[in-house]
Formats: sequence, C-alpha cells, structure tokens
Amino acid sequence: KINADRLWDSIHEMAKIGPGVAGGSNRQTLTDEDGEGRRLFQKWCEEAGLTMGVDEMGTMFARREGTDPNALPVYVGSHLDTQPTGGRYDGVLGVLGGLEVIRSMNDLGIKTKHPVIATNWTNEEGARFAPAMLASGVFAGVIEQDWAYNRVDAKGKKFGEELERIGWKGDEKVGARKMHAFFELHIEQGPILEDEGIDIGVVTHGQGLKWLQVTITGKEAHTGSTPMPKRRNASLGMARVIELVHEVAMDYQPDAVGAVGHIEVYPNSRNIIAGRTVFTIDIRSPDKRVLDEMDARVREGIATICDALDVQYEIEQVGHFDPVTFDKGCVKAIRSSAKRLGYSHRDIVSGAGHDACWINRVAPTAMVMCPCVDGLSHNEAEEITKEWAGAGCDVLFHAVLETAEI
Amino acid sequence: KINADRLWDSIHEMAKIGPGVAGGSNRQTLTDEDGEGRRLFQKWCEEAGLTMGVDEMGTMFARREGTDPNALPVYVGSHLDTQPTGGRYDGVLGVLGGLEVIRSMNDLGIKTKHPVIATNWTNEEGARFAPAMLASGVFAGVIEQDWAYNRVDAKGKKFGEELERIGWKGDEKVGARKMHAFFELHIEQGPILEDEGIDIGVVTHGQGLKWLQVTITGKEAHTGSTPMPKRRNASLGMARVIELVHEVAMDYQPDAVGAVGHIEVYPNSRNIIAGRTVFTIDIRSPDKRVLDEMDARVREGIATICDALDVQYEIEQVGHFDPVTFDKGCVKAIRSSAKRLGYSHRDIVSGAGHDACWINRVAPTAMVMCPCVDGLSHNEAEEITKEWAGAGCDVLFHAVLETAEI
Ligand SMILES: NC(=O)NCCC(=O)O
Ligand SMILES: NC(=O)NCCC(=O)O
Repeated sequence: KINADRLWDSIHEMAKIGPGVAGGSNRQTLTDEDGEGRRLFQKWCEEAGLTMGVDEMGTMFARREGTDPNALPVYVGSHLDTQPTGGRYDGVLGVLGGLEVIRSMNDLGIKTKHPVIATNWTNEEGARFAPAMLASGVFAGVIEQDWAYNRVDAKGKKFGEELERIGWKGDEKVGARKMHAFFELHIEQGPILEDEGIDIGVVTHGQGLKWLQVTITGKEAHTGSTPMPKRRNASLGMARVIELVHEVAMDYQPDAVGAVGHIEVYPNSRNIIAGRTVFTIDIRSPDKRVLDEMDARVREGIATICDALDVQYEIEQVGHFDPVTFDKGCVKAIRSSAKRLGYSHRDIVSGAGHDACWINRVAPTAMVMCPCVDGLSHNEAEEITKEWAGAGCDVLFHAVLETAEI
Repeated sequence: KINADRLWDSIHEMAKIGPGVAGGSNRQTLTDEDGEGRRLFQKWCEEAGLTMGVDEMGTMFARREGTDPNALPVYVGSHLDTQPTGGRYDGVLGVLGGLEVIRSMNDLGIKTKHPVIATNWTNEEGARFAPAMLASGVFAGVIEQDWAYNRVDAKGKKFGEELERIGWKGDEKVGARKMHAFFELHIEQGPILEDEGIDIGVVTHGQGLKWLQVTITGKEAHTGSTPMPKRRNASLGMARVIELVHEVAMDYQPDAVGAVGHIEVYPNSRNIIAGRTVFTIDIRSPDKRVLDEMDARVREGIATICDALDVQYEIEQVGHFDPVTFDKGCVKAIRSSAKRLGYSHRDIVSGAGHDACWINRVAPTAMVMCPCVDGLSHNEAEEITKEWAGAGCDVLFHAVLETAEI
C-alpha cells in the first residue's frame, strides 16, 4: 500500500501555492503560481531520485529507471494547474498520486522492468487558455503546437509567450516519447461514487465534448429612448441561446449535459443595449451520435434566435473531443487491482475531459477515480477524504506495478 | 441666432479629449479625460468673461452677471461625461450649447436682468458609477451626498475619492444655489424627430426609470460531470430574467422599454457552471402606474425563476426616478421660441433620463431636443447635423433670453 499520509501532506503543501479565496486553489496555467507549483514538484521528484524532462509545451516527465533498458515507460500523472476558483484535488491528486506511487516503490525497494514516469500536463483546465487538455492534445497529435502557442487569454497574452515567461518551455519535442501505458488517477467530480458508497471508479469511457464560442453582434443603443421594435439586442440573443443549450441538454439527459459559464458583454453599461456578446457553450455526451445531434440543434437554434432578433452571429469551435473508450487491458489492470485490494468498485464514465482522453489515442490508457464530497468540483469547496485518496492511489499503485512488471 | 459654426467647432474640439475607438467618445466621469474636458470648458468660460463656481459634487457653474443684483440666475447646461462607447453629442451639445448662448449674448451685447449660468453636471451617464444623474440628484435633494461619495465603480474605486483625485471637488455646498429656471438642450436619442422630419422637440415629460441590480447565487460546479438535475445554474437564472424583462417591456410597449445591458458572471470559466451572476435591469415608462406594475412583475418573475432553479437572489434598486412633468412656463418658453424662429416642432417625451429631470423638482425646468441620425445614441456612431444643433441652440437661446428678461 502507498503512504496515504504522505500523499495527503503533499497535496496540502501544494495547495499553499496559489491559494484561493475560500479554501481552494487559484493556480491557473502559466501564471507565476503555476511556475512555483512546478518547482515544488520538481524538488520532490529530485528528492525521489527521478530525472526530469520537459517538453516544448511545458509538460514535465519525472523518470524512475526500469531494469530493462529497452522497455517503454509506464506513465502516470495528471495536471497541477487549477481553475480560477478550483479545488485542491482536481488534477493535483493524479500528479502527486503518481509521485506517491514512485515514492512507495522506493520505500519498498521495488524494481520494475519498465521505467515509471510521473507526469504533469500543461493547461489541462482550459480556464485561462481554451481548449482544455491543450498539452496532452498536442502530445497526441490532435492539436497543432503553433496553434496552441497562439491561444490567447482574456488579457490578450499568448500561451507560447507565457510559457517562456515562467521559464518552463522545455526543449523536448512534443509527442516524441513512446509509452507502454498511461494511468491517471482523478477525483470523480460527480456524485455517483459517493452516492453509492463505492471506493473506486474504474473508468471505462469518457464523455465527448464541444466548446462553441459564440459572438452575437447587435447594435449598441440607448436603453431608455430606443423603441422596443427598433432594438437589436445582443444580450437578449445570448439569453435565448443559454436557455436553448439548457433545453437541448435536458432533452438528452442523463446522456448529456450542457451550460454556458463564460460570458462577456460589450460595452457592458447599464443603459446601453448590448451591441455584442461573446460566450462559450459547453455541451457533452458519452454518445457521439447524441453529441453531434446536440451540436446540430444548438447551431440551428442559434440561427433561428438571431434571425428573429435581427442580430448577427459567429460560432467558433474552440474545443472538441469525441467520446473515448479506454484501453481494455489498462482498464482490466485497474479493475483487478481494486478487487485484489478489497475495495468496492464499479465501472464509470468520466463526465469531465482528462489528459488520459487524449493520451488514449497514442498509448494504452485508463483512469482510476475516487469519490468527492457532494460530487462537487470546479469549486473551492471541492473536498475528498484522506481514505478515498489513499484507496485511489493504492489501486493506481497496483495497476502500475502490474503493467510495469515487477 | 447663435453661431452654429462656433458651437460645432467647440463640440468637435471637446471630442478630441477621450476619443473612442470608432469616432465617438470615451470620457467617463471622474477619469483623467473628464478632468481634461472640464479644464477646456473652464478655459472657454473664462475667455467668455464668466466666473466659475464648483460644488462639492464637482458640478461646474459658469456665471454671466445680470443687471438686477437680486434676480435669481437662469441655468442652462447638461453634462460632459460620456458612456465608455459614447457619442460626441450626448450631453456635450447641452453644455456647449449653454456656453454658445452666452457667447452669442456677448457677441450681440445683450444684457439680461437675471444672471445666466452655463452648467456641467457631474456623472450624468451613470456608466462608471450608478445611478445616472448623480450630481443633479444630490443637488435636487433626492440623493444623499455621502451615499453618492461611496458609490464604487467596477474596479472598486469610490466616487468621492476619484472626484478628489482629478481635482474637481469644489467647496460650494451642493444644492445651495437657487434657480430662476433651468434649461437643457439635448439630442433626442430616439428616432421620432428624424422620422417625422421635425427640427425641434419640446420636451413636456420624461420617462420614469428603475435600475434593479440583481445578484443570483447558485453553486459553482463542473459543467461536464455535474448531472443536469443537480445543477444550481446562476447564468441560466440570469438568462431567464433577461427574457422576462424583455417580455414585460413588450407587454407595455410603446409605453415602456426594458433591457439588461450590464452583466458580470463568476467565476466566468467555460467549464464551470456559473456560481453567481450580477446584472442590472433597466425598465422605464412615462406612466408611473406602468413603471410600478413592471417593477412588480419583474420582481415576482425573478422569485419564480430562481425558485424553480434552486438559486438565491437579491435585488438592489440602484437607480430610480418617477416620470417627470416639466414646468409649464418653461415648456411654453421653448415652444414659443421654436414657433417664433420658424422651426418645425412637436411636443415629445424624453425616453432617457436627464439632469433636467431632477432639477425640475427644485426649479422651473424644461428641455429642448434636436433629432439624431437613426435615433442612435449610446453608440460611438451617434450623429447629428450642424443645422440640427444650430436650430436646437437657437431655440435654447431664445427661451433663455425670454426667461432671463432682456
Ligand atoms: N477534469 C477537468 O476538470 N478537466 C477540465 C476539462 C473539462 O472541462 O472537462
Ligand atoms: N441622456 C442620457 O443618456 N442619460 C443617461 C441616463 C439614462 O440612462 O437615461
């Protein structure tokens, strides 16, 4: 078994960097805080005798050697970046869980045939720079590196420039590494495991996602003196699209979700009819057919809504991945580890996107999930117990040992 | 007749201070640009032989003496502050029109019994600090000066501190001045005069207004992994309220308008269900009964919407004035001046709020309106012709001469 106390302490040590305002974390990607979190992780990796590689997307790979020089490494990790109002565990559990797996191997003097590499993927959250899972997407060859470098945040700063600024642009070519397997431990971020009192989620699938950034252009005009029929109201258009997204998701739930969480209004003055709104639709389903249908219905609906209001619109897809089926062998390794260790477990579909979803395209991949209180995530109040974290990390440990061959 | 060329030149000279991005103006209240605009106005006033008084709210009063030392002054003016994406004429026409009236009196060697005072009211727009017409509201005794000083902008800066910072906090007690009458020239900001090909609007009434700042509090959660029935979505609540405001306004139009132009979303991340939204409802009607009914329906609707979504709400009234009936005598002075000068004219209700609406409570007041292209205002593309401005200022001139007694 791994050392749950040590894992727990490391998580809360990391949480001191970029603290939130309500007990959570604000360590957004490529901020100074992200740089500081990376340095702490690097220090811990060096203390564990690992050698660090960093690629051109800033992803960190901390290597523990194996006994067979020709064996491909087993990778294990997640991300250290957080939402602006994120929790302490989302991503962090998976990175420090990976480190804990290695620390436990050191403690127990375990040698593996395959090297084991603890990994921290850059910009998983997609909060500062859309889309999410950016570095793993480039690694998997589905996102162009130049395009990624040119992503801008709300202040107009570029991803590539910020990566250099914080000093974490490595020299390793992205995606050059070959993997024997990849494992990611993550909190569920949903309510199923806790509701059913189950220790371990064996993640067999991941939902697909589309992020549609919509710009509606109306006409700025005086709210008091412009007659109702003369208005071209961009915020009214946006309101109707938000309702539409909700309706479409409700029609397909529980096999779908959808919402609009990102909104900008111009010029954003109390007595000006909005001339422009920019907002992002997030729709998801584990079923590709449903996701495509939702996408089509949302696009059609936007056209109808904007037509009726005499406003223009543009839709830019700023994020997309299809539903994922994880590797049967890796999934089995997780399921059998949970069984062997006597943890209650069930198969589960991930509602969130994860780096594992992209890496699954280039290497055998699977995920372990542990419950989180109230299913709450992307909230500073996100909470888990030390026991849940420990159980998840135990299962990860055994799946890694099995796959890396002791 | 006044000198329309000089008026026009002054307007476009003023527009050089705080230029917008699309030909309009961004000279928001108590910014450095506002300070610079005030200094230019002061210089022009001094060149016209006027003496400047400034009150504790920063309102500027530039005085031309009358022949009777006991006669109360006739005030004439409007505001120099603009929306963030404002036009060149909204407010500016009225202040510089007031100055032009005095310049023309100087040119023609006209003496009046009553002094004439060109006025620039602070923070008419209410864009940076709600509510609109803040200084005239304090002057009229309907807004507390301390409360006004504590109004904060989006960055948390206080009105009182910003007023001191730009150096325009005067020492004159607000509202101490007694007025014989107040006249305000303004662009219509609506389409009626232009549509009907009429030169002059004789403003008999002003619409009433309510600004309701609504805060909806839901629960931040992950957009992908939170099941639809578990959501407490603050942006969905906001969307429904925006639609509600539109429906209520449509039910009463043409005797009502309403929209939501100011919106903030927290934490504003693509994959976080919004935990909180703050937005301002602007509803108006020239009929107090209608305005009160709209207010009640909107409040009821918000309760129902938020109840259904299991989100909380708070409503703060951040602006309010009842419909206004302007002074019969002043209105008559404007109507008869228009007639005498041979300008086509009609009675009109102001759709926007104006400093004149507050001052009407403490002094006989009326307004002159001129058309604006397409009825467009609160938009950088706001446009009028020199002829329209000249006609409006001519009528203002004659109404002032009649009231100030030559
Ligand atoms: N796990 C997680 O929160 N990933 C962010 C990408 C997403 O929105 O699913
Ligand atoms: N005239 C004008 O635009 N005033 C601002 C206050 C309002 O919104 O009516």
